[in-house]
Amino acid sequence: MTKFDEATQAIRVDDQTYDVCLDPGYAIGGPLNGGYLMAVILRAAVDASPFEHPVSTSAQFHKAPAPGPARVLVEPLKAGRTVGFARARLIQNDVTQIEALITTATLSGADPGFSEKPPALPPIEDCRKLPDPKPESGMTLNAQLDLRFDPPTIGWLTGEPSGRPESRAYFRMAEEQDPDAYVLALAVDVLPPVVFSAGHRGWAPTVDLTWHLRAVPAPGWLTVVGSGRLISDGWFDEEVEVWDSAGRLVAQSRQLARVGRG
Amino acid sequence: MTKFDEATQAIRVDDQTYDVCLDPGYAIGGPLNGGYLMAVILRAAVDASPFEHPVSTSAQFHKAPAPGPARVLVEPLKAGRTVGFARARLIQNDVTQIEALITTATLSGADPGFSEKPPALPPIEDCRKLPDPKPESGMTLNAQLDLRFDPPTIGWLTGEPSGRPESRAYFRMAEEQDPDAYVLALAVDVLPPVVFSAGHRGWAPTVDLTWHLRAVPAPGWLTVVGSGRLISDGWFDEEVEVWDSAGRLVAQSRQLARVGRG
Repeated sequence: MTKFDEATQAIRVDDQTYDVCLDPGYAIGGPLNGGYLMAVILRAAVDASPFEHPVSTSAQFHKAPAPGPARVLVEPLKAGRTVGFARARLIQNDVTQIEALITTATLSGADPGFSEKPPALPPIEDCRKLPDPKPESGMTLNAQLDLRFDPPTIGWLTGEPSGRPESRAYFRMAEEQDPDAYVLALAVDVLPPVVFSAGHRGWAPTVDLTWHLRAVPAPGWLTVVGSGRLISDGWFDEEVEVWDSAGRLVAQSRQLARVGRG
Repeated sequence: MTKFDEATQAIRVDDQTYDVCLDPGYAIGGPLNGGYLMAVILRAAVDASPFEHPVSTSAQFHKAPAPGPARVLVEPLKAGRTVGFARARLIQNDVTQIEALITTATLSGADPGFSEKPPALPPIEDCRKLPDPKPESGMTLNAQLDLRFDPPTIGWLTGEPSGRPESRAYFRMAEEQDPDAYVLALAVDVLPPVVFSAGHRGWAPTVDLTWHLRAVPAPGWLTVVGSGRLISDGWFDEEVEVWDSAGRLVAQSRQLARVGRG
């Protein structure tokens, strides 16, 4: 069992209740990473489903839960021949922290009938790591990740934002871990906010995020491509596509978030 | 009150219950259009919210409700200073037909800080209407819509699909009706399935759909641009962007649907 598997495990209490322990190693400053929290919820939801894969997850982020014990409540809503629907909630101190709708199915891994082409990033050796965060920043998540950024998309670090919302990187876990649906839940929320490249800074809280698992990823590096279409009224959208080492589109997401004031 | 306003109205019974009447004029063959059904749910959810606009809607389509009376149950989950969260369900014969998570806020209409450029469609006079459906097809929806398609994206009608999942059209209601959030809920599900352009035919049921309202649309034609990234394993994604007559991105959606077998 990897550290990530352990940090996301959900222990079945009864048909609809799972005990979880939120790991302080996935914090981005104060709060825990939203992708990590979705992975925890999905462990429970998939365990409670007759199907193998979380093909669709829509999560509303109500509160920022603290590291430590919590519960996931899974309410099956309908299960057909090919698709299962459920409601899932992450609860801490009797308060819902995240509310989610989850659709499960079993993907066969058949060859796609149509696919867009994978993105063209520079070779991995020309991509760059972020500097290590200061210990007092509370960015414990970074130690779990191996991210190599397409250089122009982290120009904001040195005062040269590209001028448009974008972020692109190769990604794998820092420990040895083949990507799976739960790593993909992390992957769709693992990039710095795309608005940093458009000149914004500061805490950019996710309000809601929907992601789709399109195929089970092959072992190896993932390519994570983030972009935004509109920054308006204090809101921005962030789209993320995740491609696996075999050049398959394995996950797609969109989140609606607030522009940081920092 | 327009026909569409009437067909989507939700009459408050109590804090969490609304009576609705599903209109047979929005059918696509047997079932009612999913965008129309979302508009009905959103009428109730916005009425029950302290905020004015449904900025995010994630809907799971469990069943295909029949025309006639139904209820919308709205369960407020959390309301903060700028955002409200709710769960909403469309119920018919005591069975949930659609389960949704809805985020509300009040958009100010301020000028965007960053926006992608609007799509370039041919002039409207070079775009084409679909032929009128046969009365026995049950496609009553078409009579409510004025859609003018970018010709290559309806080449499938005459045996010339473009070979990739796409669909683009100008759109307004057939009756005089300024677009609003509810018309946009319809707009994000109003195109023929994008997979028709990739050579597929037949009933392509939506499994789940998430859409975001990004701005209140200006009066006039909407431009609706649909595309897909991957057709695999019997599943496809359909992304829709809606732009208003002022060239603003007003809505974004993604649905996960099943490829038709017809």
